[in-house]
Amino acid sequence: MNIHRVTGDLVATHRTPSLAEKSLRVVEDSRGDLEVALDPVGAKPGDFVITIGISAARIAAGDPRITTDLTIGGIIDHWSEERWRD
Amino acid sequence: MNIHRVTGDLVATHRTPSLAEKSLRVVEDSRGDLEVALDPVGAKPGDFVITIGISAARIAAGDPRITTDLTIGGIIDHWSEERWRD
Amino acid sequence: MNIHRVTGDLVATHRTPSLAEKSLRVVEDSRGDLEVALDPVGAKPGDFVITIGISAARIAAGDPRITTDLTIGGIIDHWSEERWRD
Amino acid sequence: MNIHRVTGDLVATHRTPSLAEKSLRVVEDSRGDLEVALDPVGAKPGDFVITIGISAARIAAGDPRITTDLTIGGIIDHWSEERWRD
Amino acid sequence: MNIHRVTGDLVATHRTPSLAEKSLRVVEDSRGDLEVALDPVGAKPGDFVITIGISAARIAAGDPRITTDLTIGGIIDHWSEERWRD
Repeated sequence: MNIHRVTGDLVATHRTPSLAEKSLRVVEDSRGDLEVALDPVGAKPGDFVITIGISAARIAAGDPRITTDLTIGGIIDHWSEERWRD
Repeated sequence: MNIHRVTGDLVATHRTPSLAEKSLRVVEDSRGDLEVALDPVGAKPGDFVITIGISAARIAAGDPRITTDLTIGGIIDHWSEERWRD
Repeated sequence: MNIHRVTGDLVATHRTPSLAEKSLRVVEDSRGDLEVALDPVGAKPGDFVITIGISAARIAAGDPRITTDLTIGGIIDHWSEERWRD
Repeated sequence: MNIHRVTGDLVATHRTPSLAEKSLRVVEDSRGDLEVALDPVGAKPGDFVITIGISAARIAAGDPRITTDLTIGGIIDHWSEERWRD
Repeated sequence: MNIHRVTGDLVATHRTPSLAEKSLRVVEDSRGDLEVALDPVGAKPGDFVITIGISAARIAAGDPRITTDLTIGGIIDHWSEERWRD
């Protein structure tokens, strides 16, 4: 899993049915690279989150037919943030 | 998932049967690296899109026998484009 | 598999059910990049460990329903540590 | 999928049974990094090809028991080659 | 698949049952990055090998319950070694 920080949402009205009506967040890693994660836990911008990739992402979404390759698996309460390279 | 921008099409007449007659788009990420994505949603050059990888790419293609590892899952209407590193 | 060094734990009280109550470690690779690994073997900070990714991570967790994409598969006793780029 | 250019063949007489007698090509990406791809389409050195990774590679090989993680899925006729960073 | 060079073994007595008693090799790629591969073919330090990743790694191990994400699939006899960036 990776550590990402939520930067915001994105709006994509034209989607495949398998992603319809899911909450998507734009997240960044410690290098500033952006990815898009499915969010079943309700993270907010600025939250540090654990993100789950690979086939586990679909299982973590609650339904393996949801076509995600990155899903937020938890909101981090405490960790060594000084390792984050701002 | 990742955020890509569609740069164009490519023509590949000699394909494996599992990719036959599918729409393929050349997409670039924010670093300018190119990949090829299956497009079931009808994106156009210049569109920012959400791309889905891993085994979810096959499911998003509408048929898991389609041999794609990257599928366009939606066209982005609004996001913080200033994060794109042109 | 990769070689990681355990750097510490993280606390994430708000998790998806599929990760509930599992031990998670923050690990770093030889470039200093951080990831989060499920730990079924009881590694301690400073330990060099073998980490298993992809779908094998779920099997190594002991239950393929556990939504991990990185699982600690062993604690390394001896290896050529001079290859580690501190 | 990715765009690779075929650079040559390699000879590996000592193989696992699951790769026995398959055609393998050394391919390079636009950064010059090398990988090895299974070739069911008959590509030649210098050809630009579409390569398929992840579990789709095994399906594209024509038999999911073939242990490939990268399979050539088509030979590209036309694309914007000026994007290739020689 | 990738091309790796075997650099040595590692000793890990404390392992998950799914990796128990398997031969593991430390391998490096052309950039000098290290990974750990399961070795069912008997490679020796200095050998150039083809390595298989993703779910194909488990199949190449001879038993999909073996939790590897990288398995040596063959020993290379001949290839363009001048492409290796020492």
